[in-house]
Amino acid sequence: MKTVDVCLSPDLIHLYDVTDKVVVVVDILRATSCMTAGLASGVKSITPFENLEQCQRMKTEGYLIAGERNGEKVEGFDLGNSPFDYMDEKVKGKKVAVTTTNGTVAIEKSRRSIEVIIGSFLNISSVARYVLAQKQNVLILCAGWKGKVNLEDSLFAGALVDRIIDQFDYETDAPLLARSGYLQMKDDLLGQIKNSSHARRLNRLNVIKDIEYCLTEDVFDVVPKLKDGELVV
Amino acid sequence: MKTVDVCLSPDLIHLYDVTDKVVVVVDILRATSCMTAGLASGVKSITPFENLEQCQRMKTEGYLIAGERNGEKVEGFDLGNSPFDYMDEKVKGKKVAVTTTNGTVAIEKSRRSIEVIIGSFLNISSVARYVLAQKQNVLILCAGWKGKVNLEDSLFAGALVDRIIDQFDYETDAPLLARSGYLQMKDDLLGQIKNSSHARRLNRLNVIKDIEYCLTEDVFDVVPKLKDGELVV
Repeated sequence: MKTVDVCLSPDLIHLYDVTDKVVVVVDILRATSCMTAGLASGVKSITPFENLEQCQRMKTEGYLIAGERNGEKVEGFDLGNSPFDYMDEKVKGKKVAVTTTNGTVAIEKSRRSIEVIIGSFLNISSVARYVLAQKQNVLILCAGWKGKVNLEDSLFAGALVDRIIDQFDYETDAPLLARSGYLQMKDDLLGQIKNSSHARRLNRLNVIKDIEYCLTEDVFDVVPKLKDGELVV
Repeated sequence: MKTVDVCLSPDLIHLYDVTDKVVVVVDILRATSCMTAGLASGVKSITPFENLEQCQRMKTEGYLIAGERNGEKVEGFDLGNSPFDYMDEKVKGKKVAVTTTNGTVAIEKSRRSIEVIIGSFLNISSVARYVLAQKQNVLILCAGWKGKVNLEDSLFAGALVDRIIDQFDYETDAPLLARSGYLQMKDDLLGQIKNSSHARRLNRLNVIKDIEYCLTEDVFDVVPKLKDGELVV
């Protein structure tokens, strides 16, 4: 039986052997929600960069550039980190280069895996079906916040574990912890996440609208994958 | 208002500033349960060592030596890592030197804090009362298993958070995750922990007896503290 595991922070990824695993990268607020929404809405590709300057340079190669640091859009960039930015008409058919505080770091740390796919509540059932069909070991990697565990990514991990656990074994306890947190909070995810550190840090009207959207399940039936350094569907 | 935070693994402790915090070190199976039981039962002091050879050398200075690696008692040591070993008549009044896979590492990483105290279900209410009275920032540091998050330490963290959260603020989400896991599992802690990786790894009769004991709340009214490198009450 294949295994499912959860890595609650990129700062723990050194403890996991990713080479025999499909890695589901999760950064609910808001990188992987943006990637899901964008690629499902006609964005041609999304190329993640850890480094802000490298990302910025892609502008000269015809990319739209998207960047966020500490939850704020980077000055002079084309897109911020709202999923609505990624669904705008002007982004359709375009290539996007993106850098984020946590999400792109998590993707970088997963490159040696069998495959990197992008998870969010927006495509959670598609991701669940995909990993069930792949029959490979699965690692759900939470992007967290600057290395620390965050609630929204952990609850997504728990929700995905809950959907697939019958078909997988687990070697460590993180899937059990994430799943029990999800089961405890699932009837009021929005209320709980609004109470979390991230939401309190970014408690502005447009962010609350983003958060509500990012917690909506199964808006899109896509599974973005990293291919030759680009995310595509 | 003072804050409570939870560090789910010693491999994340670099993200926390411990210098303005009381650190509650937790290694439910079984280091901190042993320390609580032993010190409450008449052990004079317990000195933690990361290094096995350093610990062993204390034998020549009149200490009883206690050691565990990968959940097994070290060959030739006086005590293993069952709390019942620490309550034996032969340990009363004695100094104990101890080394464990995870628990002593967590203690070492907390030394720069205001104070290191020892938490377990066996003394959870005493610990809760103590940190409420101290009115300092609190960090609950889970020893985990070789850097990975484990269930029993996370659930203890959640249980302690649940007892004190009305009097503390929280800066990060780990307390929320741990608490929700605890609330979800608290009516069947033993069943859930038996299902965890640690219990499955050590599924032998004497270990199950230890686990049952280590999940018993409020057997002892003590708060072990680190003073000059020794744990005492």
